[in-house]
Amino acid sequence: MTTGHDVPRTEISSLGEFGLIERLTSGLPVYNESTLRAVGDDAAVLGFGEQRILLSVDLLVEGVHFDLTYTPLRHLGYKAIAVNVSDIAAMNGKATQIVVGLAVSNRFSVEALEELYAGIRLACERYKVDLVGGDTTSSTSGLVLSVTVIGQAAEADITYRSGARAGDLLCVSGDLGAAYMGLLLLEREKAEFKANPNMQPDLEGYDYVLQRQLKPEPRTDIVEALRHSGITPTSMIDISDGLASETLHLCKASSVGCRIYENKLPLDHTMISLCQDFKLVPAVAALNGGEDYELLFTIKQEDYQKILAIKDVSIIGHMTAESGQAHLITNDEQLIPITAQGWDALKMR
Amino acid sequence: MTTGHDVPRTEISSLGEFGLIERLTSGLPVYNESTLRAVGDDAAVLGFGEQRILLSVDLLVEGVHFDLTYTPLRHLGYKAIAVNVSDIAAMNGKATQIVVGLAVSNRFSVEALEELYAGIRLACERYKVDLVGGDTTSSTSGLVLSVTVIGQAAEADITYRSGARAGDLLCVSGDLGAAYMGLLLLEREKAEFKANPNMQPDLEGYDYVLQRQLKPEPRTDIVEALRHSGITPTSMIDISDGLASETLHLCKASSVGCRIYENKLPLDHTMISLCQDFKLVPAVAALNGGEDYELLFTIKQEDYQKILAIKDVSIIGHMTAESGQAHLITNDEQLIPITAQGWDALKMR
Repeated sequence: MTTGHDVPRTEISSLGEFGLIERLTSGLPVYNESTLRAVGDDAAVLGFGEQRILLSVDLLVEGVHFDLTYTPLRHLGYKAIAVNVSDIAAMNGKATQIVVGLAVSNRFSVEALEELYAGIRLACERYKVDLVGGDTTSSTSGLVLSVTVIGQAAEADITYRSGARAGDLLCVSGDLGAAYMGLLLLEREKAEFKANPNMQPDLEGYDYVLQRQLKPEPRTDIVEALRHSGITPTSMIDISDGLASETLHLCKASSVGCRIYENKLPLDHTMISLCQDFKLVPAVAALNGGEDYELLFTIKQEDYQKILAIKDVSIIGHMTAESGQAHLITNDEQLIPITAQGWDALKMR
Repeated sequence: MTTGHDVPRTEISSLGEFGLIERLTSGLPVYNESTLRAVGDDAAVLGFGEQRILLSVDLLVEGVHFDLTYTPLRHLGYKAIAVNVSDIAAMNGKATQIVVGLAVSNRFSVEALEELYAGIRLACERYKVDLVGGDTTSSTSGLVLSVTVIGQAAEADITYRSGARAGDLLCVSGDLGAAYMGLLLLEREKAEFKANPNMQPDLEGYDYVLQRQLKPEPRTDIVEALRHSGITPTSMIDISDGLASETLHLCKASSVGCRIYENKLPLDHTMISLCQDFKLVPAVAALNGGEDYELLFTIKQEDYQKILAIKDVSIIGHMTAESGQAHLITNDEQLIPITAQGWDALKMR
C-alpha cells in the first residue's frame, strides 16, 4: 500500500532552510487583493481597508530548538512569544494577537503545560499581546510549539529587508553573541552533569548570557525609540540566525553590499570572557551565534545625528554598491568576506 | 540540572482537549481593542478599522492525525489547507491567506516535501487562498504541519457558536460518517497488508469514503448558497470531531438543548454498506465519526422555505430550551442522550 516512488531523492540538508523555502514557494500565485507581500520577509503584509496587518509563524521543536533538561517550561513559553513579537518588531510594527498550536506527548502533565502557559501569559502581558486561539493535540514524541503572530503597522512605517541603499549606515541594537555563549555554557554544564550527576552546576556570574539564551526580549523599545526620533529604517531584520546570516539577507534582498567593522561590534564583557574560556574569537561568536533577537537595520546618513541620541544602538558599518559583497574589516584592517555560518534549523544537531 | 518539581501530576488525558484548553486559557486578559473574540469558537475575530479578520490554527501531527503508509503527501497537503478553510467557513467567512509551519525529519526528501506543497498549492488554488509565509525546521521524528489561516467577513455575517435559540432548526450539509468509514477501511487494509505484504488492497468501489477521509472539501459552497438565499445562520460550527461533539458545543455555547432525528441523518449508501461490514450502527458512525468537515448550523424557523431551496442541506432536528440536553430520537422513537464520544486528538491512538 505504501508508495514506492521512483523519483530522485534530494536531501533537505543539501538545500538548507532558505534554499528549501525558495524551492517550495517559488512562483506562488496571489488570488486576493489583501495579499500585499508574501513569503520572503520577517512577516507577510496584508491590507484590509486602510490597515496593514503583519503575519508571521515560528515553530519551536523539542530537541531542535530547545532542550528541556535546562530550559524551564515557563522560559520556553516566554521565549516562544518573544521571538514572534521580534518578527513583528523587525517589520517596524506592533504585535497585537497570537495563536498557539501545541503538540505534546503524554510525558507532559497538565501542571507542566500550566508552567508553559504561565510563561506565555507573562510575555503576553509584557508585550501587550492577546492570546486569541490555538490548537492542542497529542504528539508521538516530545513537544512542538507553533506560534502565529498578528501585528499592525501604518503603511508608511513598514520596513522591509529590501530597502537598504549604498551609503546607508548599518546599525544594531543591544549586544551580540551572548545568547550563543549562554547556550554553549548550558551545553557544557549538561555534559558535566551527565558525567557526574552529583555535580552542582557552575553558573554563577553568568546571569546575563543565560538570560539572553533562555529569556530573550524583543526590542520593541527600539521600534518605539526610532519612531519617537522620526527615523524610519530603510531596511530591518531581527537577528535570530546570527549577524552574518541576517546581514547577507539584507544585502541580498536590497541588492547592495556592506562593510562591518570588528571594532564596532557591541560585545558584553561576560560574553568576551566566556569566549576566552571556550577559545573562541568574540567577533566570530557575534557574527555566527544566533538567537540574540536584536534588531539589525539600515538608516539614511542624514539620520546619523538622530541615531546617536538613541540609547543601546551601535553603528557597526555601512552599505556599499557591491551587490552581495559583505565584508568584515578586522581590528588589524584585514578585509574578510562574511559568509553565513549561522545556525540553520534544518541542520540536525 | 533538571528540575525535580514537587507538584501534583494531572494526566492530560483526564481533562481531554477541551478541558485542557479551558484550563490553560481561562481568564485571559485582553490588551488590544482589535481583539473582539478570542478563544472558544472556530476562529478568533479581530477588528482592524471596519474590517473583521478571522484567525485560526490547526496542527496535523504524524502518527496522530495521519498515517503516511496510506496518506499520500499530496493529499495531506491538500487536507491541511482544507480543514483550515473549513474553520473560516464555519464562521461564515472567506479564507484569504495561510501561513504554513513545517517540522520534518531527515527521513523526508526535498521531493517528498514538493509533493506535500503540490497538495497545498492545489487547495490554495481551489479555494483562492494565498500562501503568504511559513517556517520550516527539522524535527527529531516525523512530520508536523501547522497551518494558520486568515479570513474575512462583514461584521453582520459572522456566525458564532453561541447564537442558537430554542426553536431554531438544526441543519447539516452533505452526509455524515463517511470520512470515518474511510479511515476504518484504510486501517483494515493496512492491517491486512502487514499480515500479508503480497496482498493487493481491496479498495474498489470505495472511492467516495476514501475521498471523504483523504481529501475532504470545506463547504465554502454552502456559505455562498446561504448568503445568496439571504440566510444568516444563528450559529455554526464545522464537523471535525463528529456530529455529537459539535452539537454539544453549539448547545453549550448557546445555552440551549436540541433534538436530532435518526431518520433525518444524511447517510451515503457506501457508508451504510460499510457499516454493515464493520457491524456498526450507521447513526452511531454518523454521530461519533469525525473529519466530515461538513457545516452544522442553526437557522430561524422563518428561514425554513429558503433552506429547502439549498441543495445538499438536511434539517436534522431543532433546538430546545433545555440547556445542555441533547437527544437523539431513534427510528423506534426512543429518546437517547447524545454524549461526546467523538475523536479527541489528545487521546493517544
